[in-house]
Amino acid sequence: MTSESQNLQHVSQNKTFGGWLKQYTHASETLNCTMRFSIFLPSVATAEHPVPAVYWLSGLTCTDENFSQKAGAFRVAESLGISLIMPDTSPRGDDVADDDNYDLGQGAGFYLNATQPPWNTHYRMYDYVVQELPGLIESHFPVSDVKSIAGHSMGGHGALTIGLKHPEQYRSISAFSPITHPMMCPWGQKAFAAYLGNDKETWRQYDACELLKQGKAALPMLVDQGDADNFLNEQLKPELLKAAAEQHDSPLELRMQSGYDHSYYFIASFIDDHLHFHAGYLLTDRH
Amino acid sequence: MTSESQNLQHVSQNKTFGGWLKQYTHASETLNCTMRFSIFLPSVATAEHPVPAVYWLSGLTCTDENFSQKAGAFRVAESLGISLIMPDTSPRGDDVADDDNYDLGQGAGFYLNATQPPWNTHYRMYDYVVQELPGLIESHFPVSDVKSIAGHSMGGHGALTIGLKHPEQYRSISAFSPITHPMMCPWGQKAFAAYLGNDKETWRQYDACELLKQGKAALPMLVDQGDADNFLNEQLKPELLKAAAEQHDSPLELRMQSGYDHSYYFIASFIDDHLHFHAGYLLTDRH
Repeated sequence: MTSESQNLQHVSQNKTFGGWLKQYTHASETLNCTMRFSIFLPSVATAEHPVPAVYWLSGLTCTDENFSQKAGAFRVAESLGISLIMPDTSPRGDDVADDDNYDLGQGAGFYLNATQPPWNTHYRMYDYVVQELPGLIESHFPVSDVKSIAGHSMGGHGALTIGLKHPEQYRSISAFSPITHPMMCPWGQKAFAAYLGNDKETWRQYDACELLKQGKAALPMLVDQGDADNFLNEQLKPELLKAAAEQHDSPLELRMQSGYDHSYYFIASFIDDHLHFHAGYLLTDRH
Repeated sequence: MTSESQNLQHVSQNKTFGGWLKQYTHASETLNCTMRFSIFLPSVATAEHPVPAVYWLSGLTCTDENFSQKAGAFRVAESLGISLIMPDTSPRGDDVADDDNYDLGQGAGFYLNATQPPWNTHYRMYDYVVQELPGLIESHFPVSDVKSIAGHSMGGHGALTIGLKHPEQYRSISAFSPITHPMMCPWGQKAFAAYLGNDKETWRQYDACELLKQGKAALPMLVDQGDADNFLNEQLKPELLKAAAEQHDSPLELRMQSGYDHSYYFIASFIDDHLHFHAGYLLTDRH
């Protein structure tokens, strides 16, 4: 792929902690629309020294900007020499199907490939995150193909499912407040029915608990969950993730954090731990 | 003052880095309207152990939320045991005078006491920051009367002018990208003419360079300024602040930061330095 065919357009840049936060748009072939993303490049990243990356998948209603503005992740990313890649949460645009509710349509792509109309013409965030975006990043920026994946809420669901299905592509997985079992919660049931139709067999491939039930996970997982999170019991259900991981002795560390809620103030409090966790796998030769 | 007369209302709270970010509204007598503010309380703050505070004054268009969401200050505030107090940038409300432009009226109070109609019925941010808000904070929260003051852009102007005029009340002053000489820049000239009228003698009391020309400053000042800031030459003019400070050997450290702009990504990069600077004065007995 060439820069010309992808129409990569620079939007903005800010120096921060010695590195650079940059924002771009590009013509996505996978999503059939113009997409925006943000990338943090630590100061050590050069063509001769490409750096590993952590992909961050955001939650419902977010864009590429929420994590950049609120997570406070760049200090440690700079110190570790790790790039952060922040895609949007869905296809976008006037001709992209949408819904009046916050939990379906634009801002709510759920990191899957939709099969049902009207969603199936644009909503292919799974392929976008797994294939197109890494291809674009690694061909245009000083970023190596060594990568991990993380996310929050709907993005925690995305990080877990994508990471579990692609152990050859990622080194480690982490999540804050993930939707662990979308087949069994209102957010997931609504989105999966719309995007994937009523055959629940097709839902399992996008459900972290269902994937964990298939066998031992190959990648280490770190999950933080606040116990004052308003969505904990109805939507998130970390105890089901823990049970599914224990079934095959999968390497999951679930940390219940006392008093923390669903906000970026929670993410900011523990993002340093997540970056150090990923660095332990990104910055060493694969065993 | 009692809680009842000030009608202090709890709006929200988020646990972060072990401490608590809390948001309140109250009926401000000074500003004659309902005001919102945010306060970060580190975990060590108790009625028996009140903690010192840094007041943060935000810039044009901001509310009490920008610093909380974007500055990444709470990690170090928690580790130092310092409270952060974040007022809004102007009086607010449907019956408060406003202007269609971003640099006058609501969101642009300039931390002064307006004398000209229609502004003089509400716009008294100087008295609010110097008197009413500290009185409210120190009577309702585990915060001592030991404090410093900091801010960004218009708020950097506020921090410098308020701190310079009240060395008995503050221990130290810091600013990011401050408007150093409002009498000599378009933002300041427009605001001062509207709020204070055309007699420029009345402007001098709200101009940091003019205050520094009057004699040696009693408080240490730390100022960070990015050299890629779009407002640097027309609005901010740090070289004039430096010259005014040198005239009487005032304790100003001005740091020009290469490549940084006017955004919160710049503030986040150096806020830890500012908190450590203030801690050096807040956490020791006054000499």
